[in-house]
Amino acid sequence: MSPTPVTFASPTKPASYAWEATSEAVAERYGLPLESVVRFDLNTSPAAPERAERFLREGRFGLPLSEYPPSDYGDLVAAAARRYDAAPEEILVGAGADEILDLCAKAFLPPGGSAVVPAPTYAMFAVLTAQRPARVITVARRSAADGFALDLGAMRDAAREADVVWIANPNNPTGLAEPEGAIQQLLADVATDSPLTGRLAPVVVLDEAYSDFAGRSLSGLRHEYPRLVIVKTLSKAYAAAGLRVGFAIGRPELIAELAVYRPPGSVSVPSVAIATALLSDDGIARTNVARVTAERDRLAIELREAGWNVLPSATNFLLVDVGDASRAGDVAEALLRRGLVPRTFPEGHPLAAYLRLTVRNEQQDERLIAAAREIGS
Amino acid sequence: MSPTPVTFASPTKPASYAWEATSEAVAERYGLPLESVVRFDLNTSPAAPERAERFLREGRFGLPLSEYPPSDYGDLVAAAARRYDAAPEEILVGAGADEILDLCAKAFLPPGGSAVVPAPTYAMFAVLTAQRPARVITVARRSAADGFALDLGAMRDAAREADVVWIANPNNPTGLAEPEGAIQQLLADVATDSPLTGRLAPVVVLDEAYSDFAGRSLSGLRHEYPRLVIVKTLSKAYAAAGLRVGFAIGRPELIAELAVYRPPGSVSVPSVAIATALLSDDGIARTNVARVTAERDRLAIELREAGWNVLPSATNFLLVDVGDASRAGDVAEALLRRGLVPRTFPEGHPLAAYLRLTVRNEQQDERLIAAAREIGS
Repeated sequence: MSPTPVTFASPTKPASYAWEATSEAVAERYGLPLESVVRFDLNTSPAAPERAERFLREGRFGLPLSEYPPSDYGDLVAAAARRYDAAPEEILVGAGADEILDLCAKAFLPPGGSAVVPAPTYAMFAVLTAQRPARVITVARRSAADGFALDLGAMRDAAREADVVWIANPNNPTGLAEPEGAIQQLLADVATDSPLTGRLAPVVVLDEAYSDFAGRSLSGLRHEYPRLVIVKTLSKAYAAAGLRVGFAIGRPELIAELAVYRPPGSVSVPSVAIATALLSDDGIARTNVARVTAERDRLAIELREAGWNVLPSATNFLLVDVGDASRAGDVAEALLRRGLVPRTFPEGHPLAAYLRLTVRNEQQDERLIAAAREIGS
Repeated sequence: MSPTPVTFASPTKPASYAWEATSEAVAERYGLPLESVVRFDLNTSPAAPERAERFLREGRFGLPLSEYPPSDYGDLVAAAARRYDAAPEEILVGAGADEILDLCAKAFLPPGGSAVVPAPTYAMFAVLTAQRPARVITVARRSAADGFALDLGAMRDAAREADVVWIANPNNPTGLAEPEGAIQQLLADVATDSPLTGRLAPVVVLDEAYSDFAGRSLSGLRHEYPRLVIVKTLSKAYAAAGLRVGFAIGRPELIAELAVYRPPGSVSVPSVAIATALLSDDGIARTNVARVTAERDRLAIELREAGWNVLPSATNFLLVDVGDASRAGDVAEALLRRGLVPRTFPEGHPLAAYLRLTVRNEQQDERLIAAAREIGS
């Protein structure tokens, strides 16, 4: 039996994204040298691929910095199409996955409509929905013991009245991918229900920012479900968040609907050229993913040995169950005092008793492990 | 007497931005080497400031490419505040002026609302309005003989029912700034009318992308008119369109309303660092503006000597009255055949009989002048 989805009306004050403190603010507040502050909150890597840095130094971007990026991002689209096994007309370029999500909201979520948000999940799904303004239909995920998996029955029910269904797989900030076949099942259910509701099936936006770490993409499902948009980014497996490059992948008709909302040119000239080079090299994501997953498993073991309750992860971050919200606040404060910035969750959030910690490099992670030993469980 | 503003309902197919052909497409279509194609359609410069290119080669961005830009863009905001004589809390950073315009639409133009667009003007004003979706209240500008100046009476009438008033000053694609005092007059009229209409005064978005070329900014008017947003960009006077960096300037309360809609981080790490450096050097915009305005005056004289009807300009581009739309198409085709890409205007556009041409460098402009002599008037 599925629990009834909990529905919130749009807030009167618009929802907004919330960041952790800047490195400068942390350094100042705790009297630390700026360079000692490490971001464990952003799920980024400590270094970009050597190829990206080299490319930047060489400065061959095809265009001078005085020109706008090419209006069709032709070479970048071609490189992304090869990398993601898609046709060029199945690719749309954005300034990071965040711009792709914004374009999805504009194209598929009419003001006054509604979207399903399986909570807890990436904060921007609810923010972009509320900002349309549209109604957020919150569907609680299953318990931590169930890997925070989607509640498929409740998702199906909620999708019947929705314009958009937002899903991150693997999910952020919980860290696991859906069980084999779950998203296929949901897509099939949504397709079955759509003729019965007399509505067009909702667009399912499947954010695969972390899918390279889980070793599996569901982008091929677009062929069966023409209202599926897959979202990709260079910020995670490619270790190039600073470029601000992301993609939508979908059937050409759906990409054409999205493209209507694309701004004249939001990705910088250096970013276009570097992203094209990174995507053209098969080894870059593979090498980084191998490094991150090995380091993740090491970090998880060490933190558990320090007594921390680390949940399983198929991503580049670890979710730690600290027990209760007050204790989570204390541990966050103890980490910040050491210049280590965790991702925290506000009061009332389903993960208020948790901290999310990015897997970084051995040296930085050792500081986190040492802190965990000192702070204790 | 003011003409009645012409009002269009939102189109059923959403409005979208339209680009000229890519350089690759022009090269292929006319059998030209790619490097011979010159963009006279984008109002960019042929080269970025030497300082930007050097900075890029040196690669000192404060952050590796693997990290997101700083969440508060602290150094960039500080540099922009100094440059534009504003407080840091009066500045908002965007991925080009286009993202600032998008944020203005999200924050100030509710779906179902309406916005005043003094046509002809920058295409994105109407596109963003229609995409909310909101109603575009088109107010015709005065004639070419009147410098396409705002029709202040019609603007005032239209503003009474509007949520947003979009103005570019100097105006693109017509090329002149408003007469002294005109925008002040409109702001005063809007402020006078607002208590009478029982509505909050519309937000006036004043896009100053080209104001450095005209030598005058009206950003100081925000102190008198707290619902005025001024939009700046590094794409024009700073010759750094490829960075995708723009700003909103306004009173802190208005900037706070805009900031709600700011995405987690849309400006790339290299762009943040280079933009900060460019804004910190007083000479860069001044030098480029001096070069462009001298070259503009030379180009205008030469094109007029070739028999072309070149309108006066206070920007980095020239508007040419070709006579009629069919002739404009022929001249555009003759330019394209030579690898020179003009900005054209579609059938039915008030400037369908015109071409817009960017001022570039002497060598590139000489090709345009030679073409004008061959094509004739």
